[in-house]
Amino acid sequence: MTTLQNDRFLRALLREPVDVTPVWMMRQAGRYLPEYLRVRKQAGSFMNLCTNPELACEVTMQPLERFPLDAAILFSDILTIPDAMGLGLYFAEGEGPRFERPLRSRADVAALGVPDPEDSLRYVMDAVRLIRRTLDNRIPLIGFSGSPWTLATYMVEGSSTKTFSQVKGMLYSEPRLMHQLLETVAASVTSYLNAQIAAGAQAVMIFDTWGGVLTPADYRTFSLQYMQRIVEGLTREAEGRRVPVILFTKGGGAWLEAMADTGCDALGLDWTTDIGDARHRVGERVALQGNLDPAVLYATPDVIREKAGHILQQYGTGNGHVFNLGHGITPDVNPENAAALISAVHELSAPFHE
Amino acid sequence: MTTLQNDRFLRALLREPVDVTPVWMMRQAGRYLPEYLRVRKQAGSFMNLCTNPELACEVTMQPLERFPLDAAILFSDILTIPDAMGLGLYFAEGEGPRFERPLRSRADVAALGVPDPEDSLRYVMDAVRLIRRTLDNRIPLIGFSGSPWTLATYMVEGSSTKTFSQVKGMLYSEPRLMHQLLETVAASVTSYLNAQIAAGAQAVMIFDTWGGVLTPADYRTFSLQYMQRIVEGLTREAEGRRVPVILFTKGGGAWLEAMADTGCDALGLDWTTDIGDARHRVGERVALQGNLDPAVLYATPDVIREKAGHILQQYGTGNGHVFNLGHGITPDVNPENAAALISAVHELSAPFHE
Repeated sequence: MTTLQNDRFLRALLREPVDVTPVWMMRQAGRYLPEYLRVRKQAGSFMNLCTNPELACEVTMQPLERFPLDAAILFSDILTIPDAMGLGLYFAEGEGPRFERPLRSRADVAALGVPDPEDSLRYVMDAVRLIRRTLDNRIPLIGFSGSPWTLATYMVEGSSTKTFSQVKGMLYSEPRLMHQLLETVAASVTSYLNAQIAAGAQAVMIFDTWGGVLTPADYRTFSLQYMQRIVEGLTREAEGRRVPVILFTKGGGAWLEAMADTGCDALGLDWTTDIGDARHRVGERVALQGNLDPAVLYATPDVIREKAGHILQQYGTGNGHVFNLGHGITPDVNPENAAALISAVHELSAPFHE
Repeated sequence: MTTLQNDRFLRALLREPVDVTPVWMMRQAGRYLPEYLRVRKQAGSFMNLCTNPELACEVTMQPLERFPLDAAILFSDILTIPDAMGLGLYFAEGEGPRFERPLRSRADVAALGVPDPEDSLRYVMDAVRLIRRTLDNRIPLIGFSGSPWTLATYMVEGSSTKTFSQVKGMLYSEPRLMHQLLETVAASVTSYLNAQIAAGAQAVMIFDTWGGVLTPADYRTFSLQYMQRIVEGLTREAEGRRVPVILFTKGGGAWLEAMADTGCDALGLDWTTDIGDARHRVGERVALQGNLDPAVLYATPDVIREKAGHILQQYGTGNGHVFNLGHGITPDVNPENAAALISAVHELSAPFHE
């Protein structure tokens, strides 16, 4: 087993004792950092940044140079898989992701194959390998993927959407076609995450950004079921150590028990659930990651410290808590406020681990 | 007591027996109707349409001419109150609502007054009176307002927002200033809804569109508390009949028990909660309104009928259900699909009321 200088994050995910609560931030490598914006500009486009392992590694490392974070997360995008399937991902300035060839017919769905991660997604695996070498076992590296349902929303809509009219039109009118699509995507995600683990990812997280727009029954059928298949198909040990799996459904606070039943190691929580209540509901089965409202970072360092302390208090003493935001850090946050959060979590959490 | 030809909607809100489940649709007067688009074009701007009682009445009546709906809802906008407070509401084409003078300082908040509904909001009251005359007691008329928190988000941000950075910045950094703002807005909403009731609204609904972006504790403190004050301040009887109050927090499925404790008559549900579960949680205390995913209207009439039947089944037999969508009908829905929904609800619900 390779020795990590700081393994708090992995230990907390497995509900083992730690000295202080580990902390990282979703989108910690991102637009709130001026040094990120410089590299992003140099890359020319967001996709150039994602597909260049050296640049992806550079921006992955940037927040670690500023803050004593307990985990690094691969810099990439959830839409790399559909891009590798041939849909033609691009980013229209200020408009978010778009596909040149969204899925428009049964034939489009039938034509989809499972991409070979070491071929059309090799740039991601190269980034993972390079980041691991650069991290040099200081802290663990998180790999990630979008959930099948979340990826399917973009693949069918062709872009971000408010109404989900096309993808829900397919779900409601042609549920079998939707299942066919989700099966292919789930197989692709499994293969993609296993390749990330083989390349060096020490934990993986599945982002189900849009599971929360489904009815409770449809969430189980069209999102959770496929995340469960992925969890069941993942390599759970590498380098002599368990590789924890974190599931995160934004807006999924009502469904935590069912999510814990998938066999994952931890659940990500958005800020609309009380983490103390969530622990009462599922705490003995999984670790919990979260869940500060990212908008708290618009307040002052004193308020940030108070609110971070409040979440530590809600979770309470004992193992199994990874501190995080309830969603990604937003582009216009002052990096000094992020620094205030990270140090508050480390300072204030020690008494909860005595 | 004036005799309504069809009082199913009011009876269901008070959990009294009905022959079939009443149904209406949020935004039933709206852009999915070609006749609405014609009047909207004629009006020149959305605000012209809202401020002209004849045109507001005309579009309120339009869906009733197509579908056998069990309630009419005043055509207006939730942002009329801040406009009457002097913030200068306008609609930038394709960009949603904006304020010329959003709240930027303590002085801006301190300067806000409670508008006189029969003065600066008289156009709304005139529309209510005209619609009531035009309806001629066929079906009841619903009045409405945004919740104080929801109105505050627009008043502080100056427009729609994804991050809620400014309004949450105020909430987290200056909670007392936020309370001062919410107190003024709550007093204004109470006065506005009471004036709508005096003008002829036979039920009122409070739309808390953005309560679901708050933490559980902040939802109670900054949204629910002020809705409760409004409920306590409303005229609850008019024309010899109880005036029911419906609360709707989008994304508030976890907080239904607390919402029912406000003393309202009914809760609106979005589609992410199972209405059968919701009934088990609060059904003896309040009626429930909802909760078909509006995206089901993108499917075929057969699927719409099946999904409507499923919700009737989930609610089960007995009183207290008003059928609705879980959010507003979307602009690109085929009106024939709305017709299929309305007739399905009436046809399929009779056995649940025998």
